Amino acid sequence: MRIVVLAGGIGAARFLRGLTSHLAAAAPGADVTVIGNTADDTTLFGLRVCPDLDTVMYTLGGGIDEEQGWGRAGETFAVQEELAAYGAQPQWFALGDRDIATHLVRTQMLAAGFPLSKVTEALSVRWHLPIRLLPMSDERVETHVVIEDAEAAGGRRAIHFQEYWVRLHAEPPALAVIPIGAEDAKPAPGVVEALEAADVILFPPSNPVVSLGTILHVPGIREAISANERAPVVGLSPIVGGAPVRGMADKVLAAVGTDPTAAAVARFYGPDLLDGWLVDEVDADAVAEVEAAGIRCRAVPLLMRDVPAAARMAAEALALAAEVRRG
Amino acid sequence: MRIVVLAGGIGAARFLRGLTSHLAAAAPGADVTVIGNTADDTTLFGLRVCPDLDTVMYTLGGGIDEEQGWGRAGETFAVQEELAAYGAQPQWFALGDRDIATHLVRTQMLAAGFPLSKVTEALSVRWHLPIRLLPMSDERVETHVVIEDAEAAGGRRAIHFQEYWVRLHAEPPALAVIPIGAEDAKPAPGVVEALEAADVILFPPSNPVVSLGTILHVPGIREAISANERAPVVGLSPIVGGAPVRGMADKVLAAVGTDPTAAAVARFYGPDLLDGWLVDEVDADAVAEVEAAGIRCRAVPLLMRDVPAAARMAAEALALAAEVRRG
Repeated sequence: MRIVVLAGGIGAARFLRGLTSHLAAAAPGADVTVIGNTADDTTLFGLRVCPDLDTVMYTLGGGIDEEQGWGRAGETFAVQEELAAYGAQPQWFALGDRDIATHLVRTQMLAAGFPLSKVTEALSVRWHLPIRLLPMSDERVETHVVIEDAEAAGGRRAIHFQEYWVRLHAEPPALAVIPIGAEDAKPAPGVVEALEAADVILFPPSNPVVSLGTILHVPGIREAISANERAPVVGLSPIVGGAPVRGMADKVLAAVGTDPTAAAVARFYGPDLLDGWLVDEVDADAVAEVEAAGIRCRAVPLLMRDVPAAARMAAEALALAAEVRRG
Repeated sequence: MRIVVLAGGIGAARFLRGLTSHLAAAAPGADVTVIGNTADDTTLFGLRVCPDLDTVMYTLGGGIDEEQGWGRAGETFAVQEELAAYGAQPQWFALGDRDIATHLVRTQMLAAGFPLSKVTEALSVRWHLPIRLLPMSDERVETHVVIEDAEAAGGRRAIHFQEYWVRLHAEPPALAVIPIGAEDAKPAPGVVEALEAADVILFPPSNPVVSLGTILHVPGIREAISANERAPVVGLSPIVGGAPVRGMADKVLAAVGTDPTAAAVARFYGPDLLDGWLVDEVDADAVAEVEAAGIRCRAVPLLMRDVPAAARMAAEALALAAEVRRG
């Protein structure tokens, strides 16, 4: 069984850990390819930082800080403290020492001419990943968020997603979300091939706008998903009880005119893309609405309290995929 | 009083700390400009590392690891450990976490187009240096050491000075020392001006070949020293009792056909450059030999056991300069 998973950060990483745990017991020969969002990437102190790829890599490699869900376990911040002492900016993005080693290797390889897909492959070796991790594109795509700014020309200002999320904590309303460069980007080598060969395609509980939405903006990716008529596409709602489990999905959903509900996110992806959708048990009311939109839907527990809980979610997603495939 | 000091690493840094300590008490208005060797600089993991400039900066700024004489006090090595886990090379050069912050700021500024002299000025602000620190040149100069290598074409191989010193511990005989790029380099802004305006020029107990020798190789620097007829040039022997106080001066002196003695180093600089020379008391025998070569010489304690000892050496150097100036 060839499974392809589109992935944002924490939600996707935890889901993937559940998926690989489930597969190790239920389908040891299964092959998982992860297409990671790179539009949250940024350059800090000259270092190329890929938060979503690294969250997936650290989580599946056993190096993640479990409590916060991102960054390295046992992390220290000596470099950042010294950067602050030099007055280097920005200081609102915490780069840990161990994390910086990842960025140094990546930045040096990129400077030497390797594409991000090759860099990601090289970094992954150290983590002995049970999946294949691909960036959505080797080209630079950068999500910017438009916010109000009375002092800016036109009263609005576009800022990098990391500034919106990490510095401003997604407090200002997001007026628009712009995946700069997405329209001109090409899928990274292997992305389209993996989607074409997939038996199942999964959308984990990631942000539908700035994570999975951006991946789907890269020309060729949505088309490859649609073209694979054999593979059911099953998603898991990142919204539980009218709010995102984590992150700022509600803020960026508002920017695309979508309510922060499990049913509205299913309709945001739409029946052309999604064959099945899992909502949490607290959103059981949404099942009928999603099915009325032409998407098979089930209500199951969707909180990833631990790896077994995430594994049960993955099993439910694969069961729904099998059900959809049978018609 | 305007004092210009040519500087290598540890020996120069400790001497400078003694000098500034002495001046604070004896000549508070004195102005000290340091021209630092940059030919030991290297690029590791994409980071531009300037060991001699940083040793001077950390020592005078109060951030040095006192025991080893280089690197930061209380240093940690989380980044390097993680780089090793990724298999990144080289691993023989220990980059501390605090130190890496310096290199990140430097590398980012250089990438943004600032010359090394501006970068060094910016880094120095944080350290509140009691001196002005200038790199010898904004251009890249790199000392390579030729060693025997049976497997190389011609039986010889040229390696970066850091590889010779840090990785090979200066164990293979140095057949030649080549300051690559020195002949084509220009002195950094302010270097020639400082030498022209100097009242005294000091050569601290630094390596005469790979540190001060390389600085003197940059066209315009030796000429500016010679052209300033008003300023006596006084040096302090880095060789005490026939061996370098620290470092590998004996190895690289052999490559230029000079014995590792206090007198031979004075003759290596020569009376055209040097007006005065301090040797250690254990080398009192050398005084007559140095004076016979046309260089005023005194034997004084030259071991920098602590800041007061270094301050006394600086006082002796300035006293010898005054004596030379009076004729």
